[in-house]
Formats: sequence, structure tokens, C-alpha cells
Amino acid sequence: MTDRRWTVAVVGATGAVGREMLRMLEERSFPVSRVRALASPRSVGRRLPFAGGEVEVEVLSEAAFEGVDIALFSAGGARSLEFARSAVQAGAVVIDNSSAWRMDPEVPLVVPEVNEDALDAHRGIIANPNCSTIQMVLPLKALGDAFGLRRVIVSTYQSASGAGQGGIDELFAGVEAHRSGEALPSEVFARPLAFDCLPQIGDFLDTGYTSEEQKMLEETRKILSMPELPSSATCVRVPVARGHLESVTVDLERRATAAEAREVLSSFPGIVVMDRPGEMVYPVARDCVGRTETFVGRIREDNALPGTLHFWVVSDNLLKGAAWNAVQIAESLVARDRVSVPRG
Amino acid sequence: MTDRRWTVAVVGATGAVGREMLRMLEERSFPVSRVRALASPRSVGRRLPFAGGEVEVEVLSEAAFEGVDIALFSAGGARSLEFARSAVQAGAVVIDNSSAWRMDPEVPLVVPEVNEDALDAHRGIIANPNCSTIQMVLPLKALGDAFGLRRVIVSTYQSASGAGQGGIDELFAGVEAHRSGEALPSEVFARPLAFDCLPQIGDFLDTGYTSEEQKMLEETRKILSMPELPSSATCVRVPVARGHLESVTVDLERRATAAEAREVLSSFPGIVVMDRPGEMVYPVARDCVGRTETFVGRIREDNALPGTLHFWVVSDNLLKGAAWNAVQIAESLVARDRVSVPRG
Repeated sequence: MTDRRWTVAVVGATGAVGREMLRMLEERSFPVSRVRALASPRSVGRRLPFAGGEVEVEVLSEAAFEGVDIALFSAGGARSLEFARSAVQAGAVVIDNSSAWRMDPEVPLVVPEVNEDALDAHRGIIANPNCSTIQMVLPLKALGDAFGLRRVIVSTYQSASGAGQGGIDELFAGVEAHRSGEALPSEVFARPLAFDCLPQIGDFLDTGYTSEEQKMLEETRKILSMPELPSSATCVRVPVARGHLESVTVDLERRATAAEAREVLSSFPGIVVMDRPGEMVYPVARDCVGRTETFVGRIREDNALPGTLHFWVVSDNLLKGAAWNAVQIAESLVARDRVSVPRG
Repeated sequence: MTDRRWTVAVVGATGAVGREMLRMLEERSFPVSRVRALASPRSVGRRLPFAGGEVEVEVLSEAAFEGVDIALFSAGGARSLEFARSAVQAGAVVIDNSSAWRMDPEVPLVVPEVNEDALDAHRGIIANPNCSTIQMVLPLKALGDAFGLRRVIVSTYQSASGAGQGGIDELFAGVEAHRSGEALPSEVFARPLAFDCLPQIGDFLDTGYTSEEQKMLEETRKILSMPELPSSATCVRVPVARGHLESVTVDLERRATAAEAREVLSSFPGIVVMDRPGEMVYPVARDCVGRTETFVGRIREDNALPGTLHFWVVSDNLLKGAAWNAVQIAESLVARDRVSVPRG
């Protein structure tokens, strides 16, 4: 570690994740020399709070990356495809929160507690995984290392904020419309979300899976370096503002008791086990919002099949699922002396 | 079928399910000679609408079953344990919506589309299964008959009304409290339900499963007559007023394509397939409330494992999950000439 300081750009700084990225940089006292907030022209001139002062939003353009060491992108896949390469050419290491680069074989897809080593091979762009993937791979890695993974099945309970501030706004607009007896809005989501659950996140593929489900499968396999791992996801949007919840089933190579699983999960970095059923202690969204950890509860052995465990995973999708994982990757790059773009 | 008419008592007539039982008897033109509404002393004298007139609530007591042919119970397990035997002794056939008698080997546990024949062995009491079980066993029976069942895994998204009118009231009180910045109530549910998901329905057992999850496993095995079927449930309360939703995974004996599964499910009584992903057609709670059918969508083959299917099941928990299934059992008893209590 040096005492060098870095120029960090946040691309999409006015969005739900962008604002949390600024907050995480501040809260972690990330060694910044300068923070730059980049966004679309309509946000230019807005002032965002940072470290007791303010950062003025500048327009996102190719020229904006001059002098930037680390660029945290969270402005959607199209912007990432358009600007990430330019940022790298200007000398910035890009940590991208969109799905644009995740499955590119040259791009590391990283959850630091799980596969930090993959960072060393980066060629300028590093991808932040999907929010629902990140919180699941932590317990999968812990259990897989200890007992071996044979199969994974997950059903998700994903909050409105996964679709950004617009998703949160539409949820609460729907609640107000319900109160006043008006038609509920459904522009951000395919159907009204208030007081309902929608089994569609993203678009439908020919296989019948949605793009969100496909991301969870592919990204999990890549992060765990288990390209053949049988895994399936059902991704559901629920009327919760913030925090994703997941019901996970794993078939293991070796039988594990719930107590053994609790032990293994408790000692894994970034995981907090909240699991005392006798006292009705288990994680819910309300407990986990604003926290950077991933919370695991409801750990139990299958009632019939030895070697099968079920558990419940909750995390703040805007923090570990997005902003915190990205800033954590930046911290890893600094610690590993990899804040530079390889040439050639 | 005769043109005989029957005296029907609804026990717990003022509750969320009891009111729907009255509505179902009316809507189905069930051949009643007289309807009696029984409830606790505090509701006595209330008048409930029925078939253009009104029924006055009488107090639930042992004597109240004199002259009753069919008694639909939905007043909780304690009332069922206290009064079902007396009702049978007075000559009534009891159709009980509580969990009190479901696993009694002498009590048929019936979903008419699945195991109507089991009714013939009744000895006075017939049990209505758990709401979350009923809507799942319809597609399980259809797929099991066609392709063979090897394993079932379900994660549920269960609405507040599963806890009765008090559950619905607490959900909306929580929404109001959230609006005004007050503390959210959690008396009916263990934690505040508004804008959160609670992975606890019922009490915790020593196994780590909840009583609701255990019910789903046991009841599914009993209804399908598959006592060894490996099956596991994770039951979650979601901030939806009415309608239960379920994400189900089945491992089959024989591989089935999604198209074959759709065909089999479409031709099963009581099931409506709503599954055109290209047009974003799939069931949500809003579509299914007030309907007696069970809706299935998101039918797809596993991306890796041949013989594994995933699907999404939605139904109105107060209708097919409770009141309609009970009235449907009563219709079956009439059709099969079994509205009588065997002696001896």
C-alpha cells in the first residue's frame, strides 16, 4: 500500500447506485485526490454532497476521462458499451456495474470475498456482477469450499430499487394510486408492482428464462469457476423498496448439518449469519438496508435428502449488490497495486 | 343426484374465509334448504348477506349443530378440535378448513380434482388442505400422472390474507404508518410486513422448518398418496393483500418439454395455463383474485438438467385455497351421495 491518492469518476452519479457509490467512497475514506461526477446533459450543474463539500456534475463524454484513474460506471449497459473503452484508452481502470461486459472472457467478474485473484488479469475493464448474483455467490462459495456444490436452485424476492430510483418511485406511486382508487402505474415494471409479485425481471429469452435469470446462472458459474454447475433461478420482483431476498437450495457433495453450515458461513468474510429460529431471528429487508454485509438465515437440512441444504439470503442490493462491491473492487485494486491499464 | 336440499352451517362465518364460503354457496347455487352462520359470542346478532336476504349470526355451541347436514368450519384449529366431533355426533358431515384433522389417518384430505375418491372413506370429518398446498398439488398431480414425480422444491410468496382479515388490516396499517413515519405494527405477523418479505409462516419446529412448510410437505404427500416423495418448501409472507404465488421446481421421471407440460396442465380440471412469455403473459395476484381456478405460467425446462421443470402457480388463497375447495368438497359429497355420517 502506498499513500498515493486517486482521481475517481462516478459515471451515472445522480442515479440510485451512483449516489451510493459516492457515499461508499466517503464512508470508506477511499484515498481520492479528486472525485468527478459524470452524468447525462440534463443533470449537468447539479451538486452532489461529498465528504462535507459538494461535487458538481459534469457531462459524460469521451474527453471527461482525461486524468481519471478509476471510473465507476453505473449508467446502464448502453453507456458502458459506448464509453468504457474510451475511459480505458484515457488510462482509467473501469469498474462497470452494468451487464455489458460481464460475460466477456477478457473481463474479470469479481466479488472480492470470492474471487479477488481474478482482478490481476484485468485489461482495463472489470465487471461488477448482478445484484442478485453477488449476494448468492458469497454463501455458495463458503458452502462449496467446505462441502462441494452439486446443484443450486434459487427463487428471488427482488426489490423495486433494482430498477433504480424510477422503480422505487413507481412502487410508491402505485401505493398512492391504490389508496385513492386510481389505476396503478406500470411503466418501469411490466405490471403494477404495488401489492403484487411479478415473475419477470428483464426480457424473456427463447428458453423461457428471463435475462435476469440467465445472468444469475451464467455469472454464478463464471465467478465460481464452475462452468458446468447445474443451477436455475426464478427471479421475482416484490413490492419492497430496497433489499433483495433469496430462497436458495443447494445439493452438496458431502452431507452437512445446519450447525456445520452455520459455522462455515459465519467464518466467511462479508457474511453475517442471522439464524436463531427459536427466537424468530432471521434476516428481512428492513434489517439489512444500509449495511454492506450479506445476511444468511433459515439454514436447515432437507427433510428427506441427505446433502441438501436450504437457506435464505438478504442484502442491500444498492450496496453489496452494486455500489459497495464496486468500491470494494477499487480497494482491492489499490491493495494489489493494479490501478493501471496494461499496455499492448 | 337428487333434488334434495341441505342445511349448511358455516362456522366462523364472519371471518375472511367464512364470508367467502357464504358467497361460494350462493354463487354456485348450492342446494341449501337453510344456511346457518355460527361464530363466537361477540358476533352474535350480526347479519350477513346471503342470496338476496340475510343470515343472522348464531353462537357456536354443541347444540347448534342439531339438524345440520353439512358444516363448513373455518374458525381456527382450536374451535375445530372442540366442536367438530360434536357436529358429527349431531349428524353433520364436517368439512374443516383448519389444520386440526388434516394428518389424521381416518380423515380424508381432499382436493376434488386430485383425489375426490378419498371422500368415500370419510367417517364424518373431511379436511380441506392448507391454501399453499392446494394450488401446488393441482399441477403436481397433472405433471406426476403424465411424467412421474421424483422431487419437488417450492418457494412461496403468500399474501397477508392467509392470516385472515387481521393480516390484511395489519398490512394496510403498516403502509399508512410508513407514510406518516410512525412505527409499523407487527402483532399478527412476527415482523412488520409492509414493504418487506418475512420468511416465517407459523411456528418454528426443531428441524428448522416452520409449521407452514411442514404442512405443505406432509399434506402434499398425503393428497398425492406418495408418502416418500422428496419435497421441501420455503414459505414466505409477502406484502400482497390476497392471492398466493409459488415458484415450483419438479424433477420428473421422464423428460418433458415445456410445450408437453403446457398441454398436460391445460387439460387438467381447475388449471388455467397463462404462459405466453413472448407477450409477457404470466399470472400475478391481481389477475387471479376472485377466480376459483389455479393459474400456471413461467413453465420452462431446466437450462441444464433434463427432466427438470420450473413453473409459477397463482391462486386466490381465500377461494381455491379455502372457501371454494370446501364448497367443492360439499358438491362432491352431494354428487357421490355421501352427505351422511357412517355409524359404528
